[in-house]
Parts: sequence; structure tokens; C-alpha cells
Amino acid sequence: MSLPILFIFSVLLISSFPPHTAALDFCIADLTLPTGPVGYPCKNPANVTTDDFVYSGLGTAGNTSNSLFKSAVTTAFVTQFPGLNGLGLSMARGDLAPGGVIPMHTHPSAHELLIIIEGSVVAGLISSSDNQVYLKTLNKGDIMLFPKGLLHFQVNTGRVPVIEFVSFSDPDPGLQTVDNALFANSLPSEYIEKVTFLDDAQVKKLEAVFGGTG
Amino acid sequence: MSLPILFIFSVLLISSFPPHTAALDFCIADLTLPTGPVGYPCKNPANVTTDDFVYSGLGTAGNTSNSLFKSAVTTAFVTQFPGLNGLGLSMARGDLAPGGVIPMHTHPSAHELLIIIEGSVVAGLISSSDNQVYLKTLNKGDIMLFPKGLLHFQVNTGRVPVIEFVSFSDPDPGLQTVDNALFANSLPSEYIEKVTFLDDAQVKKLEAVFGGTG
Amino acid sequence: MSLPILFIFSVLLISSFPPHTAALDFCIADLTLPTGPVGYPCKNPANVTTDDFVYSGLGTAGNTSNSLFKSAVTTAFVTQFPGLNGLGLSMARGDLAPGGVIPMHTHPSAHELLIIIEGSVVAGLISSSDNQVYLKTLNKGDIMLFPKGLLHFQVNTGRVPVIEFVSFSDPDPGLQTVDNALFANSLPSEYIEKVTFLDDAQVKKLEAVFGGTG
Amino acid sequence: MSLPILFIFSVLLISSFPPHTAALDFCIADLTLPTGPVGYPCKNPANVTTDDFVYSGLGTAGNTSNSLFKSAVTTAFVTQFPGLNGLGLSMARGDLAPGGVIPMHTHPSAHELLIIIEGSVVAGLISSSDNQVYLKTLNKGDIMLFPKGLLHFQVNTGRVPVIEFVSFSDPDPGLQTVDNALFANSLPSEYIEKVTFLDDAQVKKLEAVFGGTG
Amino acid sequence: MSLPILFIFSVLLISSFPPHTAALDFCIADLTLPTGPVGYPCKNPANVTTDDFVYSGLGTAGNTSNSLFKSAVTTAFVTQFPGLNGLGLSMARGDLAPGGVIPMHTHPSAHELLIIIEGSVVAGLISSSDNQVYLKTLNKGDIMLFPKGLLHFQVNTGRVPVIEFVSFSDPDPGLQTVDNALFANSLPSEYIEKVTFLDDAQVKKLEAVFGGTG
Amino acid sequence: MSLPILFIFSVLLISSFPPHTAALDFCIADLTLPTGPVGYPCKNPANVTTDDFVYSGLGTAGNTSNSLFKSAVTTAFVTQFPGLNGLGLSMARGDLAPGGVIPMHTHPSAHELLIIIEGSVVAGLISSSDNQVYLKTLNKGDIMLFPKGLLHFQVNTGRVPVIEFVSFSDPDPGLQTVDNALFANSLPSEYIEKVTFLDDAQVKKLEAVFGGTG
Repeated sequence: MSLPILFIFSVLLISSFPPHTAALDFCIADLTLPTGPVGYPCKNPANVTTDDFVYSGLGTAGNTSNSLFKSAVTTAFVTQFPGLNGLGLSMARGDLAPGGVIPMHTHPSAHELLIIIEGSVVAGLISSSDNQVYLKTLNKGDIMLFPKGLLHFQVNTGRVPVIEFVSFSDPDPGLQTVDNALFANSLPSEYIEKVTFLDDAQVKKLEAVFGGTG
Repeated sequence: MSLPILFIFSVLLISSFPPHTAALDFCIADLTLPTGPVGYPCKNPANVTTDDFVYSGLGTAGNTSNSLFKSAVTTAFVTQFPGLNGLGLSMARGDLAPGGVIPMHTHPSAHELLIIIEGSVVAGLISSSDNQVYLKTLNKGDIMLFPKGLLHFQVNTGRVPVIEFVSFSDPDPGLQTVDNALFANSLPSEYIEKVTFLDDAQVKKLEAVFGGTG
Repeated sequence: MSLPILFIFSVLLISSFPPHTAALDFCIADLTLPTGPVGYPCKNPANVTTDDFVYSGLGTAGNTSNSLFKSAVTTAFVTQFPGLNGLGLSMARGDLAPGGVIPMHTHPSAHELLIIIEGSVVAGLISSSDNQVYLKTLNKGDIMLFPKGLLHFQVNTGRVPVIEFVSFSDPDPGLQTVDNALFANSLPSEYIEKVTFLDDAQVKKLEAVFGGTG
Repeated sequence: MSLPILFIFSVLLISSFPPHTAALDFCIADLTLPTGPVGYPCKNPANVTTDDFVYSGLGTAGNTSNSLFKSAVTTAFVTQFPGLNGLGLSMARGDLAPGGVIPMHTHPSAHELLIIIEGSVVAGLISSSDNQVYLKTLNKGDIMLFPKGLLHFQVNTGRVPVIEFVSFSDPDPGLQTVDNALFANSLPSEYIEKVTFLDDAQVKKLEAVFGGTG
Repeated sequence: MSLPILFIFSVLLISSFPPHTAALDFCIADLTLPTGPVGYPCKNPANVTTDDFVYSGLGTAGNTSNSLFKSAVTTAFVTQFPGLNGLGLSMARGDLAPGGVIPMHTHPSAHELLIIIEGSVVAGLISSSDNQVYLKTLNKGDIMLFPKGLLHFQVNTGRVPVIEFVSFSDPDPGLQTVDNALFANSLPSEYIEKVTFLDDAQVKKLEAVFGGTG
Repeated sequence: MSLPILFIFSVLLISSFPPHTAALDFCIADLTLPTGPVGYPCKNPANVTTDDFVYSGLGTAGNTSNSLFKSAVTTAFVTQFPGLNGLGLSMARGDLAPGGVIPMHTHPSAHELLIIIEGSVVAGLISSSDNQVYLKTLNKGDIMLFPKGLLHFQVNTGRVPVIEFVSFSDPDPGLQTVDNALFANSLPSEYIEKVTFLDDAQVKKLEAVFGGTG
């Protein structure tokens, strides 16, 4: 191999190969522009830096002490971590004080994988096909799958705080908590009762707790 | 154009063009084989008939009189209508007696479009982003969209039975009714109460109604 | 459960859970912006109202009397019903006067499910694999599937008007009618004849009917 | 770097890294099993050889002399080239004798890119949105795009045979030729005439040419 | 609300609602059947248990002491954790001894999100568009994104072992390590040298290290 | 058929059928707007012309004489051929002088199909699952598949220039050449050596060849 000649051509090489000016290796969200059905327009690649690929917001515990559920969820979704835009992945951190819960909820747009870092929880999942309950005590290092759109929950049954991380199959998985959907908005209690069979007193009590005005 | 010559070649034509023996124009489900992540293996195309593309089960009203909800849902999902396999579409028919409801529920795997054929309903939808309520009285000919995974419901507030059809963006949309998920299975009442804040008496009462054993 | 304390925390709760400011539960099209490969940018969620989820344009019969085909198709595609943007669903209403037809056509971007509400039609579908004809008389309540891109048609063979609804697996399914594609544009008749084997007189006659200038 | 030690560990290395026994780098079709909505089950990776990635059937010209269209299409679809299974790509070779045509047709499941290797053609495309005609003379090295499901055609207007290759965005793109769909099957001429406005004599004439029995 | 009547209907309720016998909430892989382009056929839902949603294999550190790279990767891909089948998610655990590395590699089928649990690493990513290097020291709680197919690596530059978890956007992400691809198989050294410009001595040396026979 | 009447209705016909003003038959990229995760916003359909579907840049051989690899790749990706936007297809032309190579590389976003038009090459592919080598001499008319993200290469072992075309399953497939990723940027040689086990002298030598500054 004739290296002296190779040296001469090394500058030419770069321009003789295709420019790839727009190869969508990634599409860092430009959050200042309107989002579309699959995400935000991309930040100009020329302005992308290493920090667009890194997020440090999950390193600190959420504050569980001022939560009704004694838990806190800290998210790294596309609006916090624009690098995830369009890529089919996101994360969150969960902190549950002893006795804390992650209330019954779904993620309309994503499957979830939970990993326990510290402590242990009872986690449950309910299938849509036949209302089957899948219930398990998870310890450090265990992972559990919650398929997209299915109701699930966790309870910290131990004496120590739980630290956990969850991964989602979408940069914006959504979160619909049953309590918030029923009792934290203007949905008329008349309709809540008709479509859930909950008693009026129960509905009114929880609307007071969650700030519902219906 | 020299037709006499064309006639001579007409038989040859068919064999000189590509055979397309497996073009996936459609994939009628072979329900006798195990399904996979996106549907069932296809029935042998040689055995496909017109009836594989047609389903007549939505022509008759469901029986609303023996339903707790005074409603009936009749489905044309892939297991009833194998032609839908893998195609991103299915349908169902809803019948609601006066006062009947479609209880609070989600479809984990599909968006839904509802069209009212007879009668009128109050339909509601709750977003995940901010628990916003979208509530509307729908009359004959109106269509309403319920995005995938979001809680929604209907109430027949009129004096006549409601007939409606719904279309889904998946051949197997799933259906998770909140009441059935909470109260119709073995989920321990202790956990239900912790993750919904419902009172013990309320939970026990509805478990009795829906057959829950937890 | 200590409700007095719960009351105190109810306001805090909302802010301690993740904000989800951009969860793509839905993406109402902003039709004033340029569309992209999978749909329009989303309307600002803060401006979304119930009416973005509802469309009433399919409640009225189309005018079949001034149609060459004695039929009318009224669409609820994304440009009429922006709520469908990016969601893989749309609808249309078909009205066919007695003797009316839906001419031979395809939808390049969507599978179709047809449901007959009133009257009856003969519907036909032709596969690409082997030009197989699937032909069926459909009555009230029957549904029929027309897979994406395949030629299909309907004929109202009854004595009463037909009302029908169709669902599509795409918010913008497209419609390519063979007659319009061949005879309603500037395609030179010389080429039409070469690539269809239709006679020159036939082509000229139908170009006159459909307004072709080629 | 301490190479002697590295040598010792080299055998261990292979087993200490993950086995990846099923990584779906590729999924060579096992054509003996039933296909599914997105393709065939995979051949056992242990039996995959280089020949599963290579296909030589496009190297020879198709026989245009016994074709009504004076053309021949040779395909490398998944049933001929099982390596394409599930991968979103396939190819074909077109040969057009002078005066030959690729008749008016669609591919229901794939976009197409055509490249001219020898000769020149007039190629045409008709949009569904407004029946717009896009017509172009293509010479050696030119490429033209035909989006999925749209009617298109080619005419060899030159004096030499045309050799061309086409790429598709699906391993089984399908092919629906208008003439074959209308005139080469059992579709009753009565319906053909109603849904195309073609004259009875024209329909009968072309049914005779293409072997139609309706 | 008339509960006594509700009690009577509670058994009927379950059968009057649709059966959903095949709703694809999840598709636990049946690893005994051949996989297809998007995953394995599903285990019979009747045999699914809670353990199908849980995996405990990531709780223990991998053995880094007999690895050339002083690191170990333990995977929870679909073949280890069949619940992930078809769902667009998987995980792995990385352990890096002080001085250990995750060698230069790609995942052909998945994006990756890395989270550091203990220790710190220098992680690097190289874009395809312009060979841009994105290099960062990651500490406990930091997450970093590695888009699909792009070369990336890690080096444990600290004095303590690193524990980390990675999430992938596919149940079977694949792993192609540059060294293994070049030097651990039968690829002839002549070709390696021609297509990488590496010197013959270097190639031979590393083939010896990695077990290459070419 | 009453043609005189048909004539009268021909103008009405066009307006009585749905307008389809936005049917996404195609979405020609507007390269002046920011791209998104699946491509650029669409050019206004009213301004689309035949030239948006045609590209002539692959008709001329690339200049192989000033390339280190004695080869040239000319691309028809979305930035050169905006008609491909969002459609899952693109092409490129490869020219290899005698002795020329396409160096070891991957396409992170696309599968590739190669067809040899003139000459012959040795082409190789390495799987991720087990570093298996698939090596083949390809002659005129042969096609070979390189699945997404897998390392592959070509060597012109003949005495004549090679002309070849490649098709990709994405409008922007990306290209990551191992040499450029390692030696043509600012990646510190210290890290290159740690994560590839290449010798320092080899790294420095190739950084000089490829312009690396690390």
C-alpha cells in the first residue's frame, strides 16, 4: 500500500463520498416548532452537541413527601430530553416512600419495562382480554413488563424507600391515572356514577380529594 | 391493432407475466394456527372465497335486556371476521336501551370512530395529558373520535334505543372496562383501595356486583 | 385513610406528577401549516375543544341526481375532520340512487370496510395475485372488506336508495377511479390505447364524457 | 497492551458476551410454512448460507416475443428470493421490445423506483388526488418514482430493446393490471360496463383477447 | 341505583360483553416455534402466568474477570425474556471493572438508552452523517442515547466497578462489535486489509487475539 | 347508455366527487423547511411537476481516480431527489475502478439491494448474531442483499470498471464507514485503542491518512 499517495488523497476523499447532509441518524426535537403526529421537527444538525444526547434529570430523587400517593415520578420524555424525538424510547424514575403507591394507571402510547434499583414493591397488571390479574413482588434487579394501555400499579410494601427506573417504547408515553381521569376534572358526577357504578357519596368524596369540579 | 394475432397470444400472456403466488393483498386469518405479534398466519389463498371478505354478524341488535349496563356490544374483530387479519381495521355494533351506558373503558390497541345510526348519546373522552374532559351530545349521523388508550364512555340520554357502529384502527382493539378490571377478578381489595383511594365498602359492594373474588 | 390530610395535599398532587405537556394522545391537524409524510403539524393542545373530536358532515345524504354515476360520496377525511390527523382512521358516506354505481376504483393508501345501512348492493373486488373476482350481494348490516389498493366497485341493484358508511385505515385514503384516471385528464389517447388495448373510438367517446383533453 | 494475556482470554471472550441466538438481522423465508401478515417464518439461522443473500435470476432477458404487450417482467420477489422476507425491498427486471409496453397497472403494496439501463421509454403516472398526468421520456440512467397504488405505464418508443430494473418498497409488491383485472376473469360484462362506462362491444372484444369468461 | 337487581345480572354481564379471546395485549413468545420477521408466535394466553411478565436475570453482576474487555453484558432480550416478544423494548445490564470497556459496536435493530447506576464512564458516539464524535463523562443517574446502528463505546475511567442498565427499542436489538466482525471469523485477511486499510501485521495480530481464521 | 345526457353531467361530475385536496399519494420534500423524524414537509401539490418524480444524476459515472478507495458513490437520496421523501426507497450508483473497493461500512437506516450492471465484485456481509461471514463473487445481473445496519463491503477483483446500482429501503439510508468513523474525526486515539485493541502506531498512521485529529 502506497501511503505517501494516500496522504495526498485524504482531503479529496471526504468530498468524493456522498454528503449525507440530512441522514436521519437522529432528530433532536426543536421544541420551539409545532409537533406533528410522530414528533417535533429536528434541530439543525449543525447545532447538535453532545448534550443533546445526555440527560441528567433522573439522578435525583423526586419529592415524595408532598404527594397524596407518597411517591414521585420524574420523567425523561421528549419534552425534557429532546434527543428522544421520534426514536421510540423514553425513561422515568420512580421514588416511593414506605407505604407509597403508583396509583392505578395506563400509558396510552407505550409499553413499559420497570427495573427495581432499591427496595421492593408489589406490582400488578390487569389484562384486557379477560381481566386477568398478574401480581408479583419485585425485588432489586427484577424487571417487569406492562404492555401498552393496560391498567397497572405498584405498592411499596417494604420499610425502605423504593428507587426504580422505567423505560417506555415511545418518547411520549402518556399517563392516564384512573383517579385523576375520574375525579380531578369537570366530568359531571352524574355521568361518573352512571358509567362506573360508583356511589354518589364516594364520587363526591374523591372529587374533593382530587380537586374535581363536576 | 391486429386482433387475430392478439387472440393467439392470449393464453401465453398469462404465463409470461409474473406469477404473484403470494402477493399479500390480504391475509385471511387461519384461526387454527397460533397467532403472532401482528396476527395469524394466512389461510391458503387457493381456499379463499368471497365469504372471507364479508361478515353479516352486525346486522342484528345485541340483547340489552340482560346487561347490567342496558347495552350490548357485538364485535367484528379478527376472531369473528378473519378477513381483517393484519389490516388495521375492525368494527363493532353498539346497542343501548334508553338509560343504557357504555361504561368507562379504553381500547389499548386502537383508535375508535363512532357513528350514530339511531338515537342520541352523551359521549365523553378524557385526555391523558391534563385530564381534560371532552363531552358531547351526538345525534344521528354524527361521528366522534376516541384516540387509542384514552378513557371514554357513552350514556343514552334519550327515550329510544341507540344503534351505532364503531370502527377501530386494529383488527383486535382490546377493551378494558374500569369496573371489570377492578371488580371482576381476583385483585385483592386491599390493593384496589391503596391504588384508587376508593373506600373499602365501595370496593366490596362493586366486587359483589361484578363477581370479584379479591 | 386520613382524609383531612389528603385534602391538604390535593393541590400539590397535580404539580408533583409529571406535566405531560405534549403527550400525543391526539394531534388535531393544523391545516394552515404544510403537511408532512404522515400528516399535518398538531394544533396547540391548549386550543383543542370537544368539536375537534366530532364531525357532523356525514348526517346528510349526498346529491346523487347530478352525478354521472347516480351516486355521491361524502368524505370525513383529515381535511374535513382534522381530528383524524395521524391516527389511521377515516370515514365516508355513500349514497347510491337506484341503478347508481360506485365506479371501479382503488384507494392507494387504505383498506376499506363497508357497512350497508339501507338498501342492498352488489359489491365486487378483484385481487392482484390472480385477478380473482370476489362478488357479493350485500344487505343491511352486512360489512365487506376491500384491501388497500385493489380495484373494487358497487352497483345498487335494488329499487331503493342505498345508504352506506365506509371506514378507512388512513386519514387520507386517496381515491383513484379508473375512468377519471384514463379519460378525465390530458393523458394522450395514443398512450391510453397502447397501454389498455381500448379502441380509439372508445377512448375518444369516454374522453368526451369525462372531460379528457388528451 | 499485554498480548500474552489477551491470547489466553480469547476463547473465553466469545462465551462471556451475549449469545444473540435469535437477533433478527434477517429472516430468510421458510417458504414451506404458511405466510403471515408481514411475511414467512424464518429459516433456521444455522442453515443460512451465502446463497440466501444472492439471486441471479435477473441477469437474463425475459422473452418478449410471446407477449401480447411485447414485454416481459422477471421478478425477484420474496417467493423467488426468500432473503427479502420482511425487509421492505424487492426488485424486478423489465424487457420491452421496440413498440412494447408495460400496460396500465398498479402495485397495491409498494412504491417503485425505475432505472433505465438500455434504450428509452415514455413513462406515465396518474395521481389520485386530481387525476394529474405526469409523463416523461426516460433515457439511460434516469430514474423515476411511481408511488404506491397509483396507475402507471411505460411505452418503448425507441427502435432498440429496453432493459430496465425496478426496485420496490416491499418484498411482495403485487401487480394489478387494469386489462387483466377487467377482462381476464369471470367478472360479468354487465358489471364491467356499469362501473367503467365501456361499451358492450369493447368489453366483449377485450374479454376475448384476455381470456375473460364474464 | 338498584343493587339487588344488579346482583342478579352480574353473571350474565360477563357473557354479554365481547369475548376478546385473542386481543393482542401481549404476545408471550413461544420459543419452540419458528420466529418470523417481527417475532415468535404467541404462547397460548390460557397458559400465561405472572412469571411471563417478570425477569430476574439482571439482578446479578456479570463476570468481568474472564473477559478480554474487563466487562460483561447480561441481556434480557426476547430469547431470555419471552414476554418482550413483538413489543419494541428490551434491556441489558452492563458491568465494567475499573479499566474495562464496552468495545466499539452497533445495535443494528434498536436505539439504546443507557443509565449509570454506579461509577462513571466515558461514553462516545459517532454519527454517520459527518463522522461527528459525541463524547461525554457519565455519572450516576445520567442517561445517554445511542441511536440505532451508530458506532458507540464506553470506557470505565474510574476506580470502582460500573453498574449500568440499557434499554433498547426492540426485543432483539442485535450487537455487532467491530473487533468480532473483523477478527473473530473466517473473513480473509486480504479482504480485511483492502476494505479497512489496516496493515497486515495488525490484522494478523488481532485475528490471533479474537480467534479469526481468515 | 344515454350519452347525450352524460355529456351534460360531465362537468358536474368532477365537483360532486370528493376533492382529495391532500391525499398523500406522495409528499415531495420541501427542502427549505426543517425535516422531522420521518421526513420533510411536503411541497405544495399545486406546484408539483413531472420533474419531481424523475432524477437523472445516476446516469454518469462518478470519478474514481481521486478516491483513496478507487471508487465513487453517487446518491439519489431525499436531499438529491426530493420525490423520495417519506416513501421508504432510494438509490445510489457505485463505480469501482479495477482494484477499487467499497470500504467496510453500514447503513444505519436501510436494507440494501445491490445489482451489478458491468464487471464483477467480491461482496461480503457479516452478521451480528454470530459474526458469520457471507462472501460471494457477483457478476452482471446478480443481486445481493445487505440487511440494515450490518457491516459489508465490496472489492473489484476484475480487470474492468464495475458499474452497479443499489436500492435502499429508506429515503435517507445513512452511511457509516468504519475507517471514517474511527480515523477521520476528533476521536482521541487513546479511546480508539482501548475500544478496538488496535495498536497506537496503526491508529496514528490511519488518522494521518483519513485526516483524524484525535
